[in-house]
Amino acid sequence: MSDTSFRISAGEALTAEKITEAGEKPTEAVANYAQRLGDDALILAQRLGWWIARAPELEEDVALGNIGLDQLGHARSFLSYAALAWDKTEDDLAYFRDEPEFRNAQLFEQPNGDFAHTIARQLIASFYQFELHRRLADSSDATLAAIAAKAVKEVDYHRDHATQWVLRLALGTEESRRRMIAGLGVMWPYVDELFRDDELVASLDGVAVLPSSLREDFDRLTGEVLARAELERPATEGLRGFVARGGGRDGVHTEFLGPLLAEMQVLARAHPEATW
Amino acid sequence: MSDTSFRISAGEALTAEKITEAGEKPTEAVANYAQRLGDDALILAQRLGWWIARAPELEEDVALGNIGLDQLGHARSFLSYAALAWDKTEDDLAYFRDEPEFRNAQLFEQPNGDFAHTIARQLIASFYQFELHRRLADSSDATLAAIAAKAVKEVDYHRDHATQWVLRLALGTEESRRRMIAGLGVMWPYVDELFRDDELVASLDGVAVLPSSLREDFDRLTGEVLARAELERPATEGLRGFVARGGGRDGVHTEFLGPLLAEMQVLARAHPEATW
Repeated sequence: MSDTSFRISAGEALTAEKITEAGEKPTEAVANYAQRLGDDALILAQRLGWWIARAPELEEDVALGNIGLDQLGHARSFLSYAALAWDKTEDDLAYFRDEPEFRNAQLFEQPNGDFAHTIARQLIASFYQFELHRRLADSSDATLAAIAAKAVKEVDYHRDHATQWVLRLALGTEESRRRMIAGLGVMWPYVDELFRDDELVASLDGVAVLPSSLREDFDRLTGEVLARAELERPATEGLRGFVARGGGRDGVHTEFLGPLLAEMQVLARAHPEATW
Repeated sequence: MSDTSFRISAGEALTAEKITEAGEKPTEAVANYAQRLGDDALILAQRLGWWIARAPELEEDVALGNIGLDQLGHARSFLSYAALAWDKTEDDLAYFRDEPEFRNAQLFEQPNGDFAHTIARQLIASFYQFELHRRLADSSDATLAAIAAKAVKEVDYHRDHATQWVLRLALGTEESRRRMIAGLGVMWPYVDELFRDDELVASLDGVAVLPSSLREDFDRLTGEVLARAELERPATEGLRGFVARGGGRDGVHTEFLGPLLAEMQVLARAHPEATW
């Protein structure tokens, strides 16, 4: 194949393999940005994978499994791109980094809890990711734009899935409504971190999306779902005054990430040659 | 929608929901046959779901995850159909039967072991299922035919996945070859059970596929893969003269099914109203 067959153009749906083959190295800053987005998706994928075989309905096993695999696909693309900057592979980044090197926002590592907790996390994650990818599809970085253009379509379905379940649980039985409110209460304190700007994104004008620019649409659209579900917007301050400090983008994580990484990384580290 | 929109015609790709809506009750014998095939797929899906987050490469997480979700889809269709005969739902059959009521062949419940064990199980499972669904697509039962016509295309991809990995592991390093041979040695004793006829299938002439009729093609095609991988056909007798007695179709299982069911069923049984 000629070199040009590997050129990535905006709007093209591309695979992790193609990004690696194209070999167009991102700058250090772009790689760090891609790594953040890849880590969000990777950690969420691990959390959702747990539900396969454990959801309350077979139909949900399939749905959450598919959403998890979509996220894993996004993670592979973002991490494959980031890895090029450091002459590494997506597997190096997924399996051979320690906790402080992970750059996901803390929302994504929060435990599955019961099904309503997971749906609350999905509501926040999917509406955040949709606004992000929608804008990132116009990035001046063609690789990021192409990844986002594919991801936004999938995340649009994830929004719909979360919305349907919030409505079903909130407007279902007294018990399901109680659980939905509890789930939203546990997850909402992690919302603020998603929309904080910092030096890295500020330095990537035209390439990265400023998180703060997504907040208005996120609030409006999740507000519509909550209103239909006859729910109040949850406080970003949790029980007993708990405030999530954030810090995931700098490698500061809650106690829940360590065990997740241990499970995710144990096999790859036991067999560092990967496929023997 | 008119009633006729729910009629199932052979060759149509249909969903578990559509089978339920159509409501065409199978006979008791057909339901028992559908349940066997559904259980094979359900148990295999649970086993493969474990690999999400634990495969030796991110790419494999996605591949095994997708294969698992395909199997879960087949399980939902077969079990939704069977459930109609007993005025139950797919979830009743998946979550509220005990071990002796499961009718999967014992191969499918065998532990994942290392990656090569899983690939050995996939080689057997996919080549068996391909021959089965290819013929079942001509069943005189339109629902079974429609499920199989969709499944055979997916299982064809599963065959390719297993074949590529058998070759890669067998012709890779000394260690990967040793592990591939060990995996095949552990799984092959469970081959014979897949091809045993019994009264139920004999009574379903034109509806069910006689398992014994699949053996010749299975042996020939897996033989070609093994030959390319420079491997001997493994013995159906295992280490120290171990012979798998079979009996899965009558509810007799190995010690490995119980823990799998416990994990699969715990949430649904803890919340029998399913979605609160």
